[in-house]
Amino acid sequence: MAGITENGRRIMVAIDEGDESIYALTWSLKNLIFQNSKDHLILIYVKPPRVVYSAFDGTGYLFSSDVTATMEKYSQQVAESVLEKAKLLCNNVQNVETRIENGDPRDVICQAVQRLGVDILVMGSHGYGVIKRAFLGSVSNHCAQNVKCPVLIVKKPKSTDGEDN
Amino acid sequence: MAGITENGRRIMVAIDEGDESIYALTWSLKNLIFQNSKDHLILIYVKPPRVVYSAFDGTGYLFSSDVTATMEKYSQQVAESVLEKAKLLCNNVQNVETRIENGDPRDVICQAVQRLGVDILVMGSHGYGVIKRAFLGSVSNHCAQNVKCPVLIVKKPKSTDGEDN
Repeated sequence: MAGITENGRRIMVAIDEGDESIYALTWSLKNLIFQNSKDHLILIYVKPPRVVYSAFDGTGYLFSSDVTATMEKYSQQVAESVLEKAKLLCNNVQNVETRIENGDPRDVICQAVQRLGVDILVMGSHGYGVIKRAFLGSVSNHCAQNVKCPVLIVKKPKSTDGEDN
Repeated sequence: MAGITENGRRIMVAIDEGDESIYALTWSLKNLIFQNSKDHLILIYVKPPRVVYSAFDGTGYLFSSDVTATMEKYSQQVAESVLEKAKLLCNNVQNVETRIENGDPRDVICQAVQRLGVDILVMGSHGYGVIKRAFLGSVSNHCAQNVKCPVLIVKKPKSTDGEDN
């Protein structure tokens, strides 16, 4: 561990559409990331598996490949837009990298942490929406138990968040 | 959140007999606690509930109050010794406070975080020994889900730890 601070740490923040991940990022920028350091910040957005639709829509027509392509394009645009907004918050950090990955966020984040040699993983305690979370289980819980590096779980205070936690 | 860094943050580190909590403390001293800051560091040691012994020992004699008192004294000495060693590591931090509390660590830590206005809770991912952990469930999991402030879970790397994680 010696030298991590001097050489810069690889800090990964998991970003999604929710306010909680942006709160976690903002909190980390104030509390964890040393100004003018060599810290390398990785903002990762994981596109969760798409809900499996029937090949037939309500009218009995097959989904065309156009529809699938449009959905895929929309999903990619959302990812890029969310990451772009997140990156704007990091203007005091010299090294910022954004990544869009696909799959179950629990597995993808754990694998990315290992593959990219991340030193600290930061996550909101919620994320990926109420319905997706119910489907996927708690991403932060899973990652906290499975990644090898320290995990920082940041909760958005209730005072600025109507959601129960 | 604004001003936390400038005014100093209240950082609580849960300490027990295990190496993992000392690793978590050391990691935090290098990665989280700003040198020469006004950060206030709280080292908390929770004496877990004692195993419930039968009032009779194997020979049929009642446990005397002497035995109970001796056990209590021993437990207090262990707590003080562990905290003293932990505090020695924090010689670069101006404000260090140690606390010994009693009860189920899951509840005690969550309550202390709220009562003392803690800004960040740091824990090892294990702690309280294999047997006690099996009995108590995962302390860090419980706290990560129940405290309102950010929680940093620090794992001791396998290379310096024979225990599976």
